[in-house]
Amino acid sequence: MPIITLTTDFGLTDEYVGVMKGVILSINPRAVIVDISHNIDPQDVTQAAYVIKSAYRYFPAQTVHVIVVDPGVGSDRAVIALRYDGHFFLAPDNGVLSFLLNNDKIEAVIRVENSRYFLKDISWTFHGRDIFAPVAAYISMGVKLEDIGNALDPVHLVQLEIQKPKISLPGEIVGTIIAVDRFGNLITNIDVNVIRFLGAEALTAIDVWIGGKKISGISKSYNSVDSGHPLSIIGSRGYLEIAVNCGNAADKLEARKGDAVRLRVSSA
Amino acid sequence: MPIITLTTDFGLTDEYVGVMKGVILSINPRAVIVDISHNIDPQDVTQAAYVIKSAYRYFPAQTVHVIVVDPGVGSDRAVIALRYDGHFFLAPDNGVLSFLLNNDKIEAVIRVENSRYFLKDISWTFHGRDIFAPVAAYISMGVKLEDIGNALDPVHLVQLEIQKPKISLPGEIVGTIIAVDRFGNLITNIDVNVIRFLGAEALTAIDVWIGGKKISGISKSYNSVDSGHPLSIIGSRGYLEIAVNCGNAADKLEARKGDAVRLRVSSA
Amino acid sequence: MPIITLTTDFGLTDEYVGVMKGVILSINPRAVIVDISHNIDPQDVTQAAYVIKSAYRYFPAQTVHVIVVDPGVGSDRAVIALRYDGHFFLAPDNGVLSFLLNNDKIEAVIRVENSRYFLKDISWTFHGRDIFAPVAAYISMGVKLEDIGNALDPVHLVQLEIQKPKISLPGEIVGTIIAVDRFGNLITNIDVNVIRFLGAEALTAIDVWIGGKKISGISKSYNSVDSGHPLSIIGSRGYLEIAVNCGNAADKLEARKGDAVRLRVSSA
Repeated sequence: MPIITLTTDFGLTDEYVGVMKGVILSINPRAVIVDISHNIDPQDVTQAAYVIKSAYRYFPAQTVHVIVVDPGVGSDRAVIALRYDGHFFLAPDNGVLSFLLNNDKIEAVIRVENSRYFLKDISWTFHGRDIFAPVAAYISMGVKLEDIGNALDPVHLVQLEIQKPKISLPGEIVGTIIAVDRFGNLITNIDVNVIRFLGAEALTAIDVWIGGKKISGISKSYNSVDSGHPLSIIGSRGYLEIAVNCGNAADKLEARKGDAVRLRVSSA
Repeated sequence: MPIITLTTDFGLTDEYVGVMKGVILSINPRAVIVDISHNIDPQDVTQAAYVIKSAYRYFPAQTVHVIVVDPGVGSDRAVIALRYDGHFFLAPDNGVLSFLLNNDKIEAVIRVENSRYFLKDISWTFHGRDIFAPVAAYISMGVKLEDIGNALDPVHLVQLEIQKPKISLPGEIVGTIIAVDRFGNLITNIDVNVIRFLGAEALTAIDVWIGGKKISGISKSYNSVDSGHPLSIIGSRGYLEIAVNCGNAADKLEARKGDAVRLRVSSA
Repeated sequence: MPIITLTTDFGLTDEYVGVMKGVILSINPRAVIVDISHNIDPQDVTQAAYVIKSAYRYFPAQTVHVIVVDPGVGSDRAVIALRYDGHFFLAPDNGVLSFLLNNDKIEAVIRVENSRYFLKDISWTFHGRDIFAPVAAYISMGVKLEDIGNALDPVHLVQLEIQKPKISLPGEIVGTIIAVDRFGNLITNIDVNVIRFLGAEALTAIDVWIGGKKISGISKSYNSVDSGHPLSIIGSRGYLEIAVNCGNAADKLEARKGDAVRLRVSSA
C-alpha cells in the first residue's frame, strides 16, 4: 500500500491536517498516511529540514514525503517534487529539502505546475490542502513527475545556510545546539563523522563542554551516570546529544537552541 | 474503504482517543480512522461546530464524522445521527451540528437509541467509547440509520446562537474573531459573501480595522507585506482572517477570540 | 488486518513516533497502527502502566501493544514480550506491565533477544525504532514469541509498587489521585470493587472528602450538579473520579496527583 508522510507546522488543534488527509483519501483511498510531525515551530524551515532528513530513510522506498512549512504560501515561490534515494518529496522551494539536494542520490526534480492535479479552487493560504495533498495522492498512485511539471536544475533551488561544526583548534570541534527534544535532550549539529576528526582513541576519551561545564567522555547509555547527572551520547539521528539521566538537560544546564558545544580530546 | 473521522475535546495525553479507535476496529477492521482534532477546548461546542463545518466536505461521500464534545454526557441529552450532503454525522444534540441543520441538504436525522449497536456496559462518563464509537463503526459497515433509532424533526434539535457579522453603517461591516489558530491568525466570522455587500470594486479597496489599527486592503498572500507586518486575507475556511507575515497576529495586535473587526470601503 | 498500538513518552513534535511507524510499515505493510498516547510524562512508567491497562481490552484479540517508556534504554534492562488475555505486549522490563503480571491470564513471557528481528544497527538511545518497532511488526505477522527469545518466569520481572487504597477505619476508605486528565478530572486509585467494602446502600450514600471539602454522594452524570460545582463519579476506567461540571476540578479544588481522597458512608 502506498505511504504518504506529512510534516507540517499546522499543529493538531485546527482542522488543517485532517482536511489534508480527507483530500488525499478522496483521490487515493488506498493511501496509508503517516504523521511525522505537525508541531514544527511555525515557519521553522530549518527544524523541518532536520526532521525529514532524519526520518525519511525508515520508510519503504516509493514513500511520498510531504513537507508543508511554507511561510511563502500564496506568493510566487515554487512547489517542487523531488525523487531522491528511491523516495518522493513534495515541498515548497524554501530550503526545507536542503539536506537532500547536495549529492548524487537525486533522481529527478520538477516544478509542480500542472493544475490538473490540484483542487479546483486554490486558496491563498492553504496550499497544503489545495496543491500538496492532491499532488501527493496522485504521485502515490503512480502519476509520473514529468506529468506534473517541468524538470528543474537542482542548483537553482533555495538552499538553507546550515550551520556546520568547526574544527577551531587542533583537537577541538565547536558545534551548535540545533534542537531540543521533548525530553530536554540537546541535539547538536556534530555528527559521528565529524567527531572522528578529533582522532581520539575512544569516545570515552572526548570531553564535551557546554556553558562552562565539562562532561567527561561520551557515554553509551543514559544511565551510565547517576540519575540527575548530565552526559553526552550519540543520539538516534547520529548526532552528539547532551542529556540528563532521568532529567531534562535544557532545564538543568540552562541551555537552548543556538548555544555552542565544544569537544576536545581529554588531556591524559 | 469506509472512513470515520473523529473530532473531540479529549486531548492526546489520555487513552480516550486510542480506546475509541480500538472499539471501532473491533467492529469494523476495515475502517480508516482520521483525526480531525482532539484539541477542541474542553466543552467548546462552538469551536467544534466551526471545525466540522470547515472540514467535512474534503472527505469522500459516505464518510462518518463523529463529534464528541459532550459536556452533557450521562444526562438525558440525545445522541443524534444525521445524513447531510452525502455524509454521515454522529454527535450529541447540543448544537455542535448547527451549521448543518439549516438547509435542504439534510437527508435524514435520527435519535440514536438501539442499544444493540452500543457496547454492553455503558459508563456514565465516556459515551465516546460506549456509544459513539460502536455506532459509527456500524454505520460505516452499512447499517441503516432507521435501524439505529427513530426519525427526528430537525426543528427540535438544539441550535447554537452563532454570532453573525452586522452591516452597521452603509458601507461598514462589523464582525467578530471566532478563533485563533496555531499561527496566531485571527479567524473572523465574516465570509466572502458578506464582504460582497460592501460593494467595493476590489478586495484591495477594503480597509480592515481591529483594535484601533487600520489594515489597508485585503491581501492575496501573507508575504504581500513585509515580514512582521499585519495583513488581512481570505483564509482557507472562506472567512476573513487577520495575520502577520511570518509572525503571530494574536500577539502582535493583542487580539483574541471575541474581539470586534470592522470592514469599510476605503475612502478614495 | 493486524493492529499495533503505540504508547510512548516521545511526544508528537520530534520525528520519533513517525520513524517507528516507518519501520513497522517497512516490515509489515498491512499493519494498522493506532496511537494510544505519546504524551506520557517523560519516564513516567506508572502513568503508562495505568494507560495500557485501561486501554488494551478495547482492541481486538491478537493486537500487539508496544509501550516505550524506557529510561533504561541502552542499559542492560531487558525487553520483554508478553502474551496476556489474548493480546501481545512489548515493553521494557521496568514495571510498565505491572497490572498484567499478577494473575492467570498470562499465556507466555519471553525476553526479546533474537537480533534477527531487530534493525541492523542498534543505537544507544532509540530502541523504540531499532528493537520495539521491528519486533512488533514481526509479531503482527505471526512470528512466534519462542522464536524471538527465551521464556522468562514472570516472578522475575520488575514490578511497580502500586499505591492501593486503604480501609483506614470501619466505613472509611483512603485513596490517592493517580492522574489528572485533560479536563482536570482527578482520577483516583479507588475502583468500584473497593467501594463495595463500605457496604453503603447506594453510591449516593457515600461522601467523598478531598482537601477538607466534602462532596455528598457519588453522581451518575457530570451535570447532576450545577455548572461549576464539584462532584464525584465512577469514571470510564472504573475508578472513582472527582470532576467539576463544565469546569476543571484540578484548578477548582487545587488538587493534584498524589493528594489523598477519603470515602465514608454518609451519616444519616
